Amino acid sequence: MTSSLPGPVDHTDAIRLALQSWPDVDRYLQSCKGVIIPLGSTEQHGPTGAIGTDALTAEAVALELGRRSGVLVTPVQAFGMAEHHLGFAGTMSLQPATLLAVLHDMVLSLATHGFERIFVVNGHGGNMATTRAAFAQAYGTAASRGLEVAPRLRCKLSNWFMAGPVMRRARELYGDREGQHATPSEIAVTLHLHNSLIAKQRALPEAAPCGSIHGPADFRRRYPDGRMGSDPYLAKPEHGLELLNTAAEALREDLSTFLTAA
Amino acid sequence: MTSSLPGPVDHTDAIRLALQSWPDVDRYLQSCKGVIIPLGSTEQHGPTGAIGTDALTAEAVALELGRRSGVLVTPVQAFGMAEHHLGFAGTMSLQPATLLAVLHDMVLSLATHGFERIFVVNGHGGNMATTRAAFAQAYGTAASRGLEVAPRLRCKLSNWFMAGPVMRRARELYGDREGQHATPSEIAVTLHLHNSLIAKQRALPEAAPCGSIHGPADFRRRYPDGRMGSDPYLAKPEHGLELLNTAAEALREDLSTFLTAA
Amino acid sequence: MTSSLPGPVDHTDAIRLALQSWPDVDRYLQSCKGVIIPLGSTEQHGPTGAIGTDALTAEAVALELGRRSGVLVTPVQAFGMAEHHLGFAGTMSLQPATLLAVLHDMVLSLATHGFERIFVVNGHGGNMATTRAAFAQAYGTAASRGLEVAPRLRCKLSNWFMAGPVMRRARELYGDREGQHATPSEIAVTLHLHNSLIAKQRALPEAAPCGSIHGPADFRRRYPDGRMGSDPYLAKPEHGLELLNTAAEALREDLSTFLTAA
Amino acid sequence: MTSSLPGPVDHTDAIRLALQSWPDVDRYLQSCKGVIIPLGSTEQHGPTGAIGTDALTAEAVALELGRRSGVLVTPVQAFGMAEHHLGFAGTMSLQPATLLAVLHDMVLSLATHGFERIFVVNGHGGNMATTRAAFAQAYGTAASRGLEVAPRLRCKLSNWFMAGPVMRRARELYGDREGQHATPSEIAVTLHLHNSLIAKQRALPEAAPCGSIHGPADFRRRYPDGRMGSDPYLAKPEHGLELLNTAAEALREDLSTFLTAA
Amino acid sequence: MTSSLPGPVDHTDAIRLALQSWPDVDRYLQSCKGVIIPLGSTEQHGPTGAIGTDALTAEAVALELGRRSGVLVTPVQAFGMAEHHLGFAGTMSLQPATLLAVLHDMVLSLATHGFERIFVVNGHGGNMATTRAAFAQAYGTAASRGLEVAPRLRCKLSNWFMAGPVMRRARELYGDREGQHATPSEIAVTLHLHNSLIAKQRALPEAAPCGSIHGPADFRRRYPDGRMGSDPYLAKPEHGLELLNTAAEALREDLSTFLTAA
Amino acid sequence: MTSSLPGPVDHTDAIRLALQSWPDVDRYLQSCKGVIIPLGSTEQHGPTGAIGTDALTAEAVALELGRRSGVLVTPVQAFGMAEHHLGFAGTMSLQPATLLAVLHDMVLSLATHGFERIFVVNGHGGNMATTRAAFAQAYGTAASRGLEVAPRLRCKLSNWFMAGPVMRRARELYGDREGQHATPSEIAVTLHLHNSLIAKQRALPEAAPCGSIHGPADFRRRYPDGRMGSDPYLAKPEHGLELLNTAAEALREDLSTFLTAA
Repeated sequence: MTSSLPGPVDHTDAIRLALQSWPDVDRYLQSCKGVIIPLGSTEQHGPTGAIGTDALTAEAVALELGRRSGVLVTPVQAFGMAEHHLGFAGTMSLQPATLLAVLHDMVLSLATHGFERIFVVNGHGGNMATTRAAFAQAYGTAASRGLEVAPRLRCKLSNWFMAGPVMRRARELYGDREGQHATPSEIAVTLHLHNSLIAKQRALPEAAPCGSIHGPADFRRRYPDGRMGSDPYLAKPEHGLELLNTAAEALREDLSTFLTAA
Repeated sequence: MTSSLPGPVDHTDAIRLALQSWPDVDRYLQSCKGVIIPLGSTEQHGPTGAIGTDALTAEAVALELGRRSGVLVTPVQAFGMAEHHLGFAGTMSLQPATLLAVLHDMVLSLATHGFERIFVVNGHGGNMATTRAAFAQAYGTAASRGLEVAPRLRCKLSNWFMAGPVMRRARELYGDREGQHATPSEIAVTLHLHNSLIAKQRALPEAAPCGSIHGPADFRRRYPDGRMGSDPYLAKPEHGLELLNTAAEALREDLSTFLTAA
Repeated sequence: MTSSLPGPVDHTDAIRLALQSWPDVDRYLQSCKGVIIPLGSTEQHGPTGAIGTDALTAEAVALELGRRSGVLVTPVQAFGMAEHHLGFAGTMSLQPATLLAVLHDMVLSLATHGFERIFVVNGHGGNMATTRAAFAQAYGTAASRGLEVAPRLRCKLSNWFMAGPVMRRARELYGDREGQHATPSEIAVTLHLHNSLIAKQRALPEAAPCGSIHGPADFRRRYPDGRMGSDPYLAKPEHGLELLNTAAEALREDLSTFLTAA
Repeated sequence: MTSSLPGPVDHTDAIRLALQSWPDVDRYLQSCKGVIIPLGSTEQHGPTGAIGTDALTAEAVALELGRRSGVLVTPVQAFGMAEHHLGFAGTMSLQPATLLAVLHDMVLSLATHGFERIFVVNGHGGNMATTRAAFAQAYGTAASRGLEVAPRLRCKLSNWFMAGPVMRRARELYGDREGQHATPSEIAVTLHLHNSLIAKQRALPEAAPCGSIHGPADFRRRYPDGRMGSDPYLAKPEHGLELLNTAAEALREDLSTFLTAA
Repeated sequence: MTSSLPGPVDHTDAIRLALQSWPDVDRYLQSCKGVIIPLGSTEQHGPTGAIGTDALTAEAVALELGRRSGVLVTPVQAFGMAEHHLGFAGTMSLQPATLLAVLHDMVLSLATHGFERIFVVNGHGGNMATTRAAFAQAYGTAASRGLEVAPRLRCKLSNWFMAGPVMRRARELYGDREGQHATPSEIAVTLHLHNSLIAKQRALPEAAPCGSIHGPADFRRRYPDGRMGSDPYLAKPEHGLELLNTAAEALREDLSTFLTAA
Repeated sequence: MTSSLPGPVDHTDAIRLALQSWPDVDRYLQSCKGVIIPLGSTEQHGPTGAIGTDALTAEAVALELGRRSGVLVTPVQAFGMAEHHLGFAGTMSLQPATLLAVLHDMVLSLATHGFERIFVVNGHGGNMATTRAAFAQAYGTAASRGLEVAPRLRCKLSNWFMAGPVMRRARELYGDREGQHATPSEIAVTLHLHNSLIAKQRALPEAAPCGSIHGPADFRRRYPDGRMGSDPYLAKPEHGLELLNTAAEALREDLSTFLTAA
């Protein structure tokens, strides 16, 4: 069954799975088989950025996307694959094999209830590979368990920070100083979401240039303060609001295509 | 090293790990080796209760506990072991082996940074067994990896809904109608936290009596609407605030003992 | 199908699964779907106690329970989760994830044959969490494999040393010196079972007080001779016989309730 | 360190690990680094044979071997890899991956304490492959954990029923009717050990001929009553005693060579 | 240690790890810490394409790259993650969790010997996610095992079919009919490598258009003959030779950068 | 369904799965349900032998067997269980648990397509245990997934170097100097296959005598240059050709029996 978007709601409370009862979900499934999972990470974001950046932003984008589309949003999975950041205090990482199992189990739970289109809004590049691997593992299990929805089950990874309009706007705002980790664009969204982070902002020396990512010791050696080519001091809360809306709108189109595709 | 509680802070922003930078965490570790992990579940809570109840309540208690103690609080792990609830739409469960790996990786990440006392504030009975198993697995790995903190690493499971003062107050408020799942006490906390849930409240027929928990089909047969002996219609938002404070205060004492014990 | 207890037998040979043939089991399943699994551990029990204490006692209680009830008893799983005792020579521990798999496979094997009520008689506190996690994992697999008994499968953990009448009698016999590990009550049962252990009994200095349990190094530091607050020198073989019978009778009632419950 | 055999003891109580205290094991390790693990299975043994045959015989041989050599004997691991017997009621099987983990953990536990030579007395052909795989896995882990004994750790699989003198004697006693599963030689040992089994003996029709072993359905189709070419009715308790002694003596020589080899 | 490329060799025999002895490898490691792993898949490639396409091409590119650079090339891992192709006969797939373990073990083996830069030449899009996840898992294990090379270990995934010059040439040769699976460019390389495949070439009806990839049933429904928008009949052996050289040259530059980077 | 051998083909291209299309495999399955998997290892073979010996020889034997029988041959799995050789540079080993998963997934993939008889041609003794364990695991999964072929699925391990005629010929050619690792017989096959290896041949000092195999450090200590009692300098390319043909012919008979057996 293809589903059109249920349509916008007034408040995110209406689309948070966490705030529904099970009969609410049964009713929802009568008309829509789609669901959104926000996926983040809990990892260092430079000397001034928040450790929760990737989870906070993924959740915020997912909720705004849900509000605009009417599609249910599950709680955020706040811990992701951040092995390479373990050299910095506060980083909490799931090993790839663990995250694979987590996403597998989440997808299988949803598929058991009849959800057929699972849209993961991801806030962390390091999750991408494992998420895709988990989708393949989940399709296999759904088939081998003979789930009713198995032939129709589809999962899609959507990285809000890589949506075209988001990247273009970040380029306009920050040029080369966007960088690749602890970027001003993601920091801006967190400044919009949490006032307490604004006070942490301060001018920083030039970041180590962007490069490749390997293990935690190598990462800390290359990127001594945790940033990859970025200048998060450029971030402003008002940028964050704009980027959040830009991301939600871009993903709304992707989600609509995903749900309605035959 | 034993740690005394850092002491109360004005706002939970000050103790949310998600809102700290990595140098903030480095500084924190100079004086305190303790950390709080909220652990919830995403599962049906009867015909009117919120699917997110266990995660919402665990997170709220943990944050209030952090505010009163000054101990850092990680993001909530919102998905737990809820296999027996999979017969109700919206439930998302990690298999026990998966949750074991998740908690193992979280503890190991924290231990790598030098955290020595890890206090899990849990909102779901179904997580208890797996969490304890995960602690044992984590101690073993910490030792076999030769982590510096391995001999001092301690984890503690604390179920807010089973704290003595909480159970006593719930008994006073609801008597036998507290029940064991979708209880008025946990529902009350969610009503306090989220206004939108108040409208879902309605009188319900008498719940199936409390009993044992086995697999999902057996659970649904025994407890057809998902409740175990509870009357969540008794819950009021003001009870929720009181229970939240009661839980936080009770756990503050446990946490203090845990951190300062030799 | 609910099963009433088949009724007492003259000798434990009649209810040891190990001493039945497969047609014997087929016949048994015509009238009873229940089975008992003794679960122990192989771990230090203080400077005088037997390393096999938990397996020896669990097996003895299970066999006596089987004799009184007529319910089949599988061989004992003598190795359990004893990671925290690995600092003492002779301890053999399965990691939690391993024990989880063992119990999962045992339950699934039995369920394949049509056993529906699986009663684990456990002799070791450290097994409790992992056993419960394994039950949940097994219910899930039984359902996902579509086993015929899946909707009726129930497992129950019964710790003989925590049965009410056992704890009361131990308190009468030993008061505060019962302690929590290498307790006189469990040692007494081993003295009753194995004469050779009596010669090892000797007066010991006061044990380290009871406290919490974390990793192996921490355990050895807290409890330098392996005991937790106990005085095993108080144990007498005749206590052991009495405690064994007390445990078997207490568990017989639990088992009867478990098998006959709808 | 190479170890010579400690020498015979009067009673098996003296060499059962289960009946030692941890200081006993510490003392033992001063002079001997060897240990014996009995490994069985819990699986159908034809229409008259005991389901526990492989565990009962492995344990009996191991204990007699311990008595003659003075080498410690751990509790029996009574559950092994018996997937192909799952078509017959009462069989309890660990999946190969599970048994691999069990043996891995057992070896690692022993190696942690300083045991260097681990001699597995096995009673079931179906365990052989997985046991050898587990040894290789354990060597790797011992090395990667940097265990002190890692460079000296050696494990050996010894199948009592395949010892030369045992096979010769079985051939003399039973000729071609020894067969390959539910053999009169192993049944004879169980008759010697357990009187109650004698009454189950009865003449049986000719068994299905020996052949290959694949999955459970294929096994049941090929060997409809569970026997592979054997006539267990030929078994006598007195054969059992003789075979037990023959096995113990043959294995004593193997064990001596194993412990003393440089 | 950074390594420059050892330089071209006359024949691929000189750089095939399979054809070296262990002292040869010891000598090689004196001057170069780099190694190439070809990674393929064994999966359907449309009604006329070879099931081995991805392994044959990855191996050929890797060997030619080795010949030009002098860097050792391991044997090809011919089985990859091809779950979505399991609806077509002959496809052999490793589940993502399995492939993750395979690549993890390969990297760890090489790192144990002192290899520091591991360059995976991949022939299959479906392997990309799992390979990247495996790298992260391997970095973690290398660190937790304390391998000497852990801080310097780097792995890189290089997909020959996505190298810029290869994609440009494929576009020139085939335009839109390159498609995304069973592409004429990869088929061309196999035609160059294996004459017997030329006879299988035949005109085919227009392929199903490119689209997304989910589970095996969904894949077969969308792409009934296995092709994704491609016209493999356009492939010529001479194209294959050219593309092979183009790929090897493009990857040689990437490899040089990878090995020499600080 | 039993299958007779399809009959000899002119060229191995005709029976390489890698060179078939999926409709080719569908057609093949109409008349034959058998398939051959070559399984090797990538590990040291003494100071002059090729690291790829076990994979090269297994693949060559399997292909010649396929040519003579007409049975399809999958690509070689070139990496096996070689933990004990990790002390020598160039060895790449899969841990037993990993290889178990690999073979499990390969068998399950083939069984999904309807292959019923899977014949593994193995070139490495160290793979034997894990391969047999994997077969048992695969039978269990095939049954629990309810695969149509599950009751008929059969796997067989065939070690080319242990075939009777091969061992007799090796004994004639090399006597006691055949040894057990880096044997002249396997080296001879590689000399026949790869001219470049001939130049590596040189007289070696007497090898360490054959003995047992445990962990990697123990192996290197016992067998300092990697050989076990062998004199690979005796190997000649013409021996290799003869041994290859001898092996293929011997295995052809085993394969025929395997495929045609009821």
